[in-house]
Amino acid sequence: MSLDLKALVRTIPDYPKKGILFRDITTLIEHPEGFKESIERIASQYRGQGITHVAGIEARGFIFGAGVAIALGVGFIPVRKKGKLPGETIGQNYALEYGVDTIEIHADVLDGSDKVLLVDDLIATGGTAIAAIGLLRRTGATVNDAAFVIDLPDLGGAAKLKAENVGVTALIAFEGH
Amino acid sequence: MSLDLKALVRTIPDYPKKGILFRDITTLIEHPEGFKESIERIASQYRGQGITHVAGIEARGFIFGAGVAIALGVGFIPVRKKGKLPGETIGQNYALEYGVDTIEIHADVLDGSDKVLLVDDLIATGGTAIAAIGLLRRTGATVNDAAFVIDLPDLGGAAKLKAENVGVTALIAFEGH
Repeated sequence: MSLDLKALVRTIPDYPKKGILFRDITTLIEHPEGFKESIERIASQYRGQGITHVAGIEARGFIFGAGVAIALGVGFIPVRKKGKLPGETIGQNYALEYGVDTIEIHADVLDGSDKVLLVDDLIATGGTAIAAIGLLRRTGATVNDAAFVIDLPDLGGAAKLKAENVGVTALIAFEGH
Repeated sequence: MSLDLKALVRTIPDYPKKGILFRDITTLIEHPEGFKESIERIASQYRGQGITHVAGIEARGFIFGAGVAIALGVGFIPVRKKGKLPGETIGQNYALEYGVDTIEIHADVLDGSDKVLLVDDLIATGGTAIAAIGLLRRTGATVNDAAFVIDLPDLGGAAKLKAENVGVTALIAFEGH
């Protein structure tokens, strides 16, 4: 396992707006060894820790979260945008740069006996991850861990999760914004 | 491998509107053996056939498609809704019950040497799948196969794909609509 995962992430300047360097994981997941090794490097850190479910955040978090759930042999919980889940749901609002968004999970999917690993492609300011962790914890489940492919440490998200007693792992870090 | 996958799919009546029986795959993917066996049953049909990529349709198709890509050891291509991919894209319109939608892939992701397996959670009338296959084929790639967890055979989608020379496999069939 010596693949340079960081080199497989494509950087697109000025997307979605001028001055932003967008870190594009599609070039990583399109690479057969790159995708598989990303999943395995995350999963290997959580084996034997009693994880019962992986939760992934719509939509890119589904790609990595589903892979990690399969690698760990546990169930997968989709954390979806408002109105996308057919059963009874619970929701959590969170602030965007402009406005508010809502994520939801099914109300009956977890209970106090469950231990959830949150997976997403990237952590920036951590707003979505904090909302997802709060939502998952409202079911009574334990959420002690979150894993990301990419961390943008200068945006402070990982530090915010640690302040909520969530251990954070990331495979790749990009300094700057 | 003798799990009853069909029994793990929850049916929600009158969703998203009256008279529709919605087949909810979240109860299947939340089940550790159910999710893993779904992925393995799909992947086992395509090993040794030279598949180079799995393409999954946003958003539920990401969950199964990513798992199948990992199981086959190939790259994963997200087929996304309009405006979600950061690089140069090609797109394909398709008709909805009311109106038109568009799916996109990155323009540079495939070429004539590639062989793609399309994966989605469910095939109904087949409109999205036909659009995705047409889009993937425009790159020059070969698309001979599509796999679904659920088929609604009375809606005719699988027959439409076969008419486009695409072999269809589905793990579960629900008669009726």
